[in-house]
Amino acid sequence: MHDFELPSPLSGGKVTIVGLGHVGMACAISILSQNIASELVLVDRNPDKLRGETLDLQHGLAFVRNAQVYGDTQYSATAGSKLCIVTAGVPQGPGDSRTSLAPKNLEIFKEIIPRLVKYSPETILLIVTNPVDTLAYAAWKLSGFPANRVIGSGTNLDSSRFRFLLSQRLKVVPSICHGWIIGEHGDSSIPIWSDASLAGVRLRDVDSRVGTKKDVENWSQLHQEVVGSAQEIIKLKGYTSWGIGLSVAALTRAILENSQSSYAVSTLVQGIHDISEDVFLSVPCILGDTGVSRIILQTLNSAELADLHNCAKSLYEIQKSLHF
Amino acid sequence: MHDFELPSPLSGGKVTIVGLGHVGMACAISILSQNIASELVLVDRNPDKLRGETLDLQHGLAFVRNAQVYGDTQYSATAGSKLCIVTAGVPQGPGDSRTSLAPKNLEIFKEIIPRLVKYSPETILLIVTNPVDTLAYAAWKLSGFPANRVIGSGTNLDSSRFRFLLSQRLKVVPSICHGWIIGEHGDSSIPIWSDASLAGVRLRDVDSRVGTKKDVENWSQLHQEVVGSAQEIIKLKGYTSWGIGLSVAALTRAILENSQSSYAVSTLVQGIHDISEDVFLSVPCILGDTGVSRIILQTLNSAELADLHNCAKSLYEIQKSLHF
Amino acid sequence: MHDFELPSPLSGGKVTIVGLGHVGMACAISILSQNIASELVLVDRNPDKLRGETLDLQHGLAFVRNAQVYGDTQYSATAGSKLCIVTAGVPQGPGDSRTSLAPKNLEIFKEIIPRLVKYSPETILLIVTNPVDTLAYAAWKLSGFPANRVIGSGTNLDSSRFRFLLSQRLKVVPSICHGWIIGEHGDSSIPIWSDASLAGVRLRDVDSRVGTKKDVENWSQLHQEVVGSAQEIIKLKGYTSWGIGLSVAALTRAILENSQSSYAVSTLVQGIHDISEDVFLSVPCILGDTGVSRIILQTLNSAELADLHNCAKSLYEIQKSLHF
Amino acid sequence: MHDFELPSPLSGGKVTIVGLGHVGMACAISILSQNIASELVLVDRNPDKLRGETLDLQHGLAFVRNAQVYGDTQYSATAGSKLCIVTAGVPQGPGDSRTSLAPKNLEIFKEIIPRLVKYSPETILLIVTNPVDTLAYAAWKLSGFPANRVIGSGTNLDSSRFRFLLSQRLKVVPSICHGWIIGEHGDSSIPIWSDASLAGVRLRDVDSRVGTKKDVENWSQLHQEVVGSAQEIIKLKGYTSWGIGLSVAALTRAILENSQSSYAVSTLVQGIHDISEDVFLSVPCILGDTGVSRIILQTLNSAELADLHNCAKSLYEIQKSLHF
Repeated sequence: MHDFELPSPLSGGKVTIVGLGHVGMACAISILSQNIASELVLVDRNPDKLRGETLDLQHGLAFVRNAQVYGDTQYSATAGSKLCIVTAGVPQGPGDSRTSLAPKNLEIFKEIIPRLVKYSPETILLIVTNPVDTLAYAAWKLSGFPANRVIGSGTNLDSSRFRFLLSQRLKVVPSICHGWIIGEHGDSSIPIWSDASLAGVRLRDVDSRVGTKKDVENWSQLHQEVVGSAQEIIKLKGYTSWGIGLSVAALTRAILENSQSSYAVSTLVQGIHDISEDVFLSVPCILGDTGVSRIILQTLNSAELADLHNCAKSLYEIQKSLHF
Repeated sequence: MHDFELPSPLSGGKVTIVGLGHVGMACAISILSQNIASELVLVDRNPDKLRGETLDLQHGLAFVRNAQVYGDTQYSATAGSKLCIVTAGVPQGPGDSRTSLAPKNLEIFKEIIPRLVKYSPETILLIVTNPVDTLAYAAWKLSGFPANRVIGSGTNLDSSRFRFLLSQRLKVVPSICHGWIIGEHGDSSIPIWSDASLAGVRLRDVDSRVGTKKDVENWSQLHQEVVGSAQEIIKLKGYTSWGIGLSVAALTRAILENSQSSYAVSTLVQGIHDISEDVFLSVPCILGDTGVSRIILQTLNSAELADLHNCAKSLYEIQKSLHF
Repeated sequence: MHDFELPSPLSGGKVTIVGLGHVGMACAISILSQNIASELVLVDRNPDKLRGETLDLQHGLAFVRNAQVYGDTQYSATAGSKLCIVTAGVPQGPGDSRTSLAPKNLEIFKEIIPRLVKYSPETILLIVTNPVDTLAYAAWKLSGFPANRVIGSGTNLDSSRFRFLLSQRLKVVPSICHGWIIGEHGDSSIPIWSDASLAGVRLRDVDSRVGTKKDVENWSQLHQEVVGSAQEIIKLKGYTSWGIGLSVAALTRAILENSQSSYAVSTLVQGIHDISEDVFLSVPCILGDTGVSRIILQTLNSAELADLHNCAKSLYEIQKSLHF
Repeated sequence: MHDFELPSPLSGGKVTIVGLGHVGMACAISILSQNIASELVLVDRNPDKLRGETLDLQHGLAFVRNAQVYGDTQYSATAGSKLCIVTAGVPQGPGDSRTSLAPKNLEIFKEIIPRLVKYSPETILLIVTNPVDTLAYAAWKLSGFPANRVIGSGTNLDSSRFRFLLSQRLKVVPSICHGWIIGEHGDSSIPIWSDASLAGVRLRDVDSRVGTKKDVENWSQLHQEVVGSAQEIIKLKGYTSWGIGLSVAALTRAILENSQSSYAVSTLVQGIHDISEDVFLSVPCILGDTGVSRIILQTLNSAELADLHNCAKSLYEIQKSLHF
């Protein structure tokens, strides 16, 4: 073959995934099988696991459109990534709260984030490791990046769980159900019932009590199920993977394709909804090739605002206890 | 909402997966994330595992186009499936040969296949459980189906491993490399070097010794790597999953979309290439909504034919030792 | 090649398009390039046009996934279609109102509809020819089909024009803007401002006057632009094609993939929102492989209801003047 | 909404189309409906046509994934394009040879190319205007670009027409037929019969006379049909559009997704196959985000080489007669 002398690739389709546990691999297969990235780099400290997972994905490449897949224990392989997805960390076991993992995972991040930044100074960081809001904040601090380029996967998954439960109750498909869950990923997440709708028709236009304390149909139960989802699945199968993998793939597509579509992700919310702390929390954001391009300002009621402010305070306390 | 009185669904987009181990779940996530099925039913004997995996997939449904996902321990949930994918069985551990699993997995198939047939008498059976050629034959016998409706995943994965290794050696992407591996899935598989090509240019047009004993560049090494792939990955990560998952998703798409495209899959080869035994072996087949619609008759040389006949004989011996 | 003896295809992926003017061909290229159908049959009375358009599409088939494309002047070629899209008719020229075309196009439908029904008695009819509401009603009458299997493309395009204009004004992408336009396709269409939202946030939660007479920002202007869209494009380029083509492709995908997602399409609304006439009008519907599976009952205010009832009455008057 | 202060977009997903005739618009709808570009800019000298076509596409944006569409008569709107597709020029009418259009279209290119280069100095130029080989050469000269960044759509369409005709004769789908047509787009194109294959099985392995003068089955007739295709369609419907549109969309995807897959396109072939002239001709090339990354060197026989050298000479003569 005759080769042209070519500059280094310009496509902006290179994605790195750090951490090849169940979550990292679910992200990898979801991204790969949806033809989202043109180059996928896997990084893990365990060379056997790394080589095994990489080979296994490579063996399926003839069935996907265009991605190249590499694995490496060295961060130099990640150079020029458009997006770095971090799933590495101590995983959440049965009974673990997400927040109890913060100090250990912060130490791991001190290893990972500077190396990613060194080789891809223009990258976007998508943090999936829990506690995701605290660790997205940590990644922001450790990277020195502008806030729009550091994103936590946040309540994107909580919102999709919410939409699935709405769909089951309404006997329709999830894609025509809308509902935002914002705030902290996990127990303190906040459902915004005033927005919940089916094909554009608000549930509260049909029954104004939906999601309130006067609600005889107990829609609030759906939020309880969302909150309990992770622990339930961990109890049943040992870990969660597919839901978060598909959720992260959706965010990855929005960023790489510059779709400017909206997702509830963890972002720097200082100054938003009168939040004074410099914390990361999930609110609906518009994502594109610069990361978070806009934050959508919802009309929150006083109870929702109070919950959001409580989230911010509690995250701020956790952050203060950590050493960056 | 106002509901029309409707007949039962007609879409032909319902797919059942039996067996939710690593392979079954890799099939599920690959099919789901590629929007191939409109309805995905999971079946497993372990209710906790079943519920955990089902919930985990359902939580990602808001990010895929249209599939509905259900899990059930009862086969009645599979009624009306267009395609049933069987991955259930004793898995291949380190050191296990694929064929040693035959008797145990045959007993499992005696439970599964009649139930699938009962609820979906018009379905296509796609067998993934190893030893796949023997079990595809078993499924054909147990189902009473015409041969075109029983398919073994066969050397579709071997062929894609081959194409990947070709692509690495040629420093191109797998999608422009072509090469068939036929015969028995596993150690006795047969690479057809005369067909191997890059973007339509045959390797043997460039060097006529490629893949022969006179080959100083040792291309045959690639086939050895294909044969060793499964054991290598099992050693490194404990099991194989992604490669077979993406491979099965490709077959599923071809069948559901009636694409009439070509894959090396295990089919009844009696009468093909002068094979006299009623065995299932992989040869290039055209797949569509009736299963295998055509078998492509390659021009095989005498060594390749001899290898194929040996495969047929050895499989026939295994079949004779089993009690259907 | 060895061929299996096979029954006739079962895939349910066959789509017929009747009428190969600009609209019909825009539907064809949109469906083909999105890999929605597995078989596309084109029907037109002009054999030269038919052959030219068919060849031109066929020459691109190597670049799409799986469709087969045929053209025929005879309806027997359409046998077994899952969906028949009718775009044939006298086109709307500059200055023509959509309704003035009704009598002529009804006569054309008397030729077309019975033939489609003869060869595909289980098909779904998707009517695009204008005046679409009247002709969808005509197709229902002429076919003898249950109402769920006759759909008019209706205000699906008006709604997408509305969403595009909302997106331009809000400086976001159309995919995160929601807004329904219902009723009659054309001048009398009804925007439902109470539902209009951006990423789930209702415009009226930000400013309660949006779309009302007190609205100082004149959002109602957007609806005027929607109403004027067709005539403006006809003036500029002679006809409309791409918008309606992409709109019809979306409906086609929903039906063939059984997506159960929601679109504003023309359906039999007798008994809905207290409409007493047996007319076809657009309201949000859930579409799947049985056609319209559900009608979504929006919460309409008295002005919107009055407009809808006026639409129904005026369509009923037109219907009475026609001879079926 | 809260907006981050953001740098200009980095996505590399911006595509410009110059010339909104039937070919340009078929390219636009094919690219748009396949979600290939994230930003599509249309340029034409006729402001009415431009506005009409742009509006018509914009009205369908709610049904595609993520593209933004703009139209402008000014080239400043094209700034930062990753790819510029040029279809502008005097079209080929009934009876026109492709080459007779060269002088007029060269003058048009002297207007267009420098403006595209001014605003997108790093872009890739994809030339579709006929005579495409001569005008790709002209674009290379006028742009001052390295050769890998100037591509003519060349015999990509001829090759897909060939594959379609093979598929019809073999009663299979085009996607499993392979066959390259190289050289000059049009009457002098060269079919490479030695490569032609079905699912990897070479036609000449089945019958060694395929495509030769001894061929009693007259396969060469297929090439005659390819050569006559454009004129036949022009006679039947007045122009060609869909085939070239889907062909260009495939090239666009390969470039934007950096797929490194192979297509027969017009590239600088000086030094390839012993061609001494600095002309553009089609040979199989690997395309990615730097344009043509590699040229695949086929094994051509002496007759094929002689034909290729004749093409080169005749194009060189045409070039000499033109004033750059």
